[in-house]
Amino acid sequence: MSEISNLQKARAAYQPKLPKALQGPVTAVEGAATQSVGNQKEIRELFPNTYGMPVVEFAEGKKAPGSQFNVGVILSGGQAPGGHNVISGLFDGIRSLNPDNKLYGFLMGPGGLVDHKYMEITPEIMDAYRNTGGFDIIGSGRTKLEEVDQFEKGIVILRELGIKALVIIGGDDSNTNACVLAEYYASKNYGVQVIGCPKTIDGDLKNDQIEASFGFDTACKTYSELIGNIERDCNSARKYWHFIKVMGRSASHIALECALQTQPNVCLISEEIEKKEQSLDDIVKYIADIVAARAAQGNNFGTVIIPEGLIEFIPAIKRLIAELNDILATDEAKTVTRENQIEYVKAHLSAANLAVFSSLPADVASQLALDRDPHGNVQVSLIETEKLLSRMVGKKLAEMKKDGKYTGKFSAQHHFFGYEGRCAAPSNFDADYCYSLGFNASRLINAGKTGYMSVIRNTTAPAAEWIAGGVPITMMMNLEKRSGKFKPVIRKALVELDGKPFKFFAQHRDDWAANTKYVYPGSIQYWGPSEVCDQTTKTLQLEQK
Amino acid sequence: MSEISNLQKARAAYQPKLPKALQGPVTAVEGAATQSVGNQKEIRELFPNTYGMPVVEFAEGKKAPGSQFNVGVILSGGQAPGGHNVISGLFDGIRSLNPDNKLYGFLMGPGGLVDHKYMEITPEIMDAYRNTGGFDIIGSGRTKLEEVDQFEKGIVILRELGIKALVIIGGDDSNTNACVLAEYYASKNYGVQVIGCPKTIDGDLKNDQIEASFGFDTACKTYSELIGNIERDCNSARKYWHFIKVMGRSASHIALECALQTQPNVCLISEEIEKKEQSLDDIVKYIADIVAARAAQGNNFGTVIIPEGLIEFIPAIKRLIAELNDILATDEAKTVTRENQIEYVKAHLSAANLAVFSSLPADVASQLALDRDPHGNVQVSLIETEKLLSRMVGKKLAEMKKDGKYTGKFSAQHHFFGYEGRCAAPSNFDADYCYSLGFNASRLINAGKTGYMSVIRNTTAPAAEWIAGGVPITMMMNLEKRSGKFKPVIRKALVELDGKPFKFFAQHRDDWAANTKYVYPGSIQYWGPSEVCDQTTKTLQLEQK
Repeated sequence: MSEISNLQKARAAYQPKLPKALQGPVTAVEGAATQSVGNQKEIRELFPNTYGMPVVEFAEGKKAPGSQFNVGVILSGGQAPGGHNVISGLFDGIRSLNPDNKLYGFLMGPGGLVDHKYMEITPEIMDAYRNTGGFDIIGSGRTKLEEVDQFEKGIVILRELGIKALVIIGGDDSNTNACVLAEYYASKNYGVQVIGCPKTIDGDLKNDQIEASFGFDTACKTYSELIGNIERDCNSARKYWHFIKVMGRSASHIALECALQTQPNVCLISEEIEKKEQSLDDIVKYIADIVAARAAQGNNFGTVIIPEGLIEFIPAIKRLIAELNDILATDEAKTVTRENQIEYVKAHLSAANLAVFSSLPADVASQLALDRDPHGNVQVSLIETEKLLSRMVGKKLAEMKKDGKYTGKFSAQHHFFGYEGRCAAPSNFDADYCYSLGFNASRLINAGKTGYMSVIRNTTAPAAEWIAGGVPITMMMNLEKRSGKFKPVIRKALVELDGKPFKFFAQHRDDWAANTKYVYPGSIQYWGPSEVCDQTTKTLQLEQK
Repeated sequence: MSEISNLQKARAAYQPKLPKALQGPVTAVEGAATQSVGNQKEIRELFPNTYGMPVVEFAEGKKAPGSQFNVGVILSGGQAPGGHNVISGLFDGIRSLNPDNKLYGFLMGPGGLVDHKYMEITPEIMDAYRNTGGFDIIGSGRTKLEEVDQFEKGIVILRELGIKALVIIGGDDSNTNACVLAEYYASKNYGVQVIGCPKTIDGDLKNDQIEASFGFDTACKTYSELIGNIERDCNSARKYWHFIKVMGRSASHIALECALQTQPNVCLISEEIEKKEQSLDDIVKYIADIVAARAAQGNNFGTVIIPEGLIEFIPAIKRLIAELNDILATDEAKTVTRENQIEYVKAHLSAANLAVFSSLPADVASQLALDRDPHGNVQVSLIETEKLLSRMVGKKLAEMKKDGKYTGKFSAQHHFFGYEGRCAAPSNFDADYCYSLGFNASRLINAGKTGYMSVIRNTTAPAAEWIAGGVPITMMMNLEKRSGKFKPVIRKALVELDGKPFKFFAQHRDDWAANTKYVYPGSIQYWGPSEVCDQTTKTLQLEQK
């Protein structure tokens, strides 16, 4: 065993809290039959064995002899704080049913199941990872479980290891695939259950049944610590505008939560920009006007939070990217040399998209035209939106200065936070929530459920009052077009513009823009006053108010 | 008052610890006359009134009636965690001598003294800033107090406010200037004392008398939290090399401390690179060899820490920059258009420097040739060394692949941490240390001292055992060439290659490079087990072992 930090040593002793219902023997209380959120007919046809099952809630039950069974677990996709706690909850859960129950971890993501790469998670191994960040206990990966061939390869090793149930810890796509796998094994009567757990720092796996995906709490608190520190620096030095991009893929949940925690001068919300059909110039003007208004008060400093997915939500850019993808996908385009590509693109773009393309700074335009992913698509995530925006704001301000509408100094600093928060040691909330999700999964397995997501609700109450149970994954599904085909998927949750978190933000942002109302959340605390170390996200607090 | 975070609310109640000697009335125990660390004759001549004074140590004394006096305080230069605690210690210190004593803060740095911008720090204002990060209570600035004209403007307001002593919280340059000011006021018999406090996250204000500059502890812990989180992500995803640049100006203390806390695969130390006269290619080869060796073990991931000042310590680049500065300073050069500047530079460089210049990636070369600061110098800090190195390592690996010496995948992510840590809420160590420095300053004032630095020693022991006193600033001085002239300055502390911290690192780095020995320190804790929330930096621990 390697050297570990004092914090990790001390945190190893933390015993995560469980909902009261899970603290002893349980009984599964079943609700009425469910429907999918959309395309009921199609989803029912695609999932004949796992469609329409009831929502399950666990209540205190009578002690029953526990049977011996083994369980497999997979970490799928990007890291999120608390993954190890889901595993430790699951581990403790199955062993509380029968001490001989074994937990196997498939290595480096779903690929481990297909390739038969696995390890047994022994008590010694488990103890080294309790309440730690990261997915390094078994690793993670992005292999998609979608093909029958993969499912069949999987069942071979599942049978060999005597595995009764597989727990897949992942985001919306991974849970969709978990459901497809559950349906397949049920249809074949293979006798292996599949249970999903809602993971992602992005916060976009959320609906009437799921209050929050795990990791969102810790990641947002880590980013907010840093943003608060920058705000304090900004307010001390009074000479920079800090442009801060935060992870979160398409959805702006992280940006919004960080804004609620830190009250920056500007926070862009992609979903609003799309709804209002704003152009890049609209956004730049919005920021530049705030910079100018603050400068007029003698405040040549400020903070701007930018969601990672912004660029794709600007309708004009979205249309440009779509046309670029079409233009560059042709056989003819593939013969064009790199040097001639920009001219080639310009010659083929429609007038409207050409105007947008020409308005972009040269390096961004060439990034759009030249840098493609292996599928030939524009690599939007590589675009440094924070620099793009600050540069365009600087240009706009220079114009405003000429017109006598701005008389300040504008100097920018840039930041991008993503990897800094995905593997932080889980906050008390995530430590408890994840442990409960994993423990709860063991109860769903014991109740014989498959195609369910482990769900913990009422999460702004103390952990003892949390509600534990399961929701059929099909209930969250509808059909969406992916790569040209309609597919059953869990509906991705974007920021709702009529939801309470956004509305709160919208009510306050003008005040936060004009006045300096920064809040400095500081670093995540694991000990200390409960209002410091046990608070949930502002998003959850506002949603459950 | 604005909304404040729960952590800030809870931390406001923290009572920082004081050395036992400062907990009651003190007596000043004086040592022998002192000498400057170099150029004794010259420094003595420059500081006839403040040279040779004894080191002072405070011991328990008898209670004496405290006289009424006012004090002024200035925050100078870049932010460092704990600045507000120096001020609260000073505030509480002078009021413990006489409750009518007043503290005035000069606004936005030394410029506030010259321009007569100030505010009284009342108990209400003080309480809102206890144990918080940032310098926003009075702001900071970079005006240098160097001219008699400034000193004379200062004395006007100091007299108007009845200020008996001025406390200047700053780095090496600011403390040098504090000493010049002390000497000037002493020579004029103006009756105003000047006391310095050792501030800077960079850790370069350190010597036989000063164990650590304040803020270094908190800043390094914040950066190490982030580096540890990235390492955990790195070790979970197993697919990226993370190149992480950390602040610290010239010295590599922060990089070294972060390496000791997190055990990355590579950490570059500028002072070693200079000593060994390594070229950029040597450094690139060093990293590429480690990448290749790890790849051979199936580990296509890793972490590299890069000190901010690296580029200037590479002798060949240093020589190139020096020649560029000369070439571009001529009147002829100023007439060259931007487009022709690179060609102009190439035509004028010596053969050796031209070779180095031509070996650089095009954008770095043009950054060196085109982007100048207002004094016409190369803006070294703008060079994104983390990207420069990863790109050059990628190129080197591609060559090695051709030669069959490397068979891995290399994909890099980049980070730069600076503003993220300069205004963090001070760790318990910095909260106590800074409060003690400020409180101690009040005792130096009361003892009638001027030209002294407030000094707290024995800092790896519990706070009660800390040794409090003062050191004549002249004692730390020597003459150095600045802008072509010899000036008296406090000798800047670079990483000592025969010091224990570097030696420990050097003994372990090959192991850390080949094997994955990451340590994840986690976020700064203010409550909890003492070994988690009260530990000092590894640098201090090793130095005082």
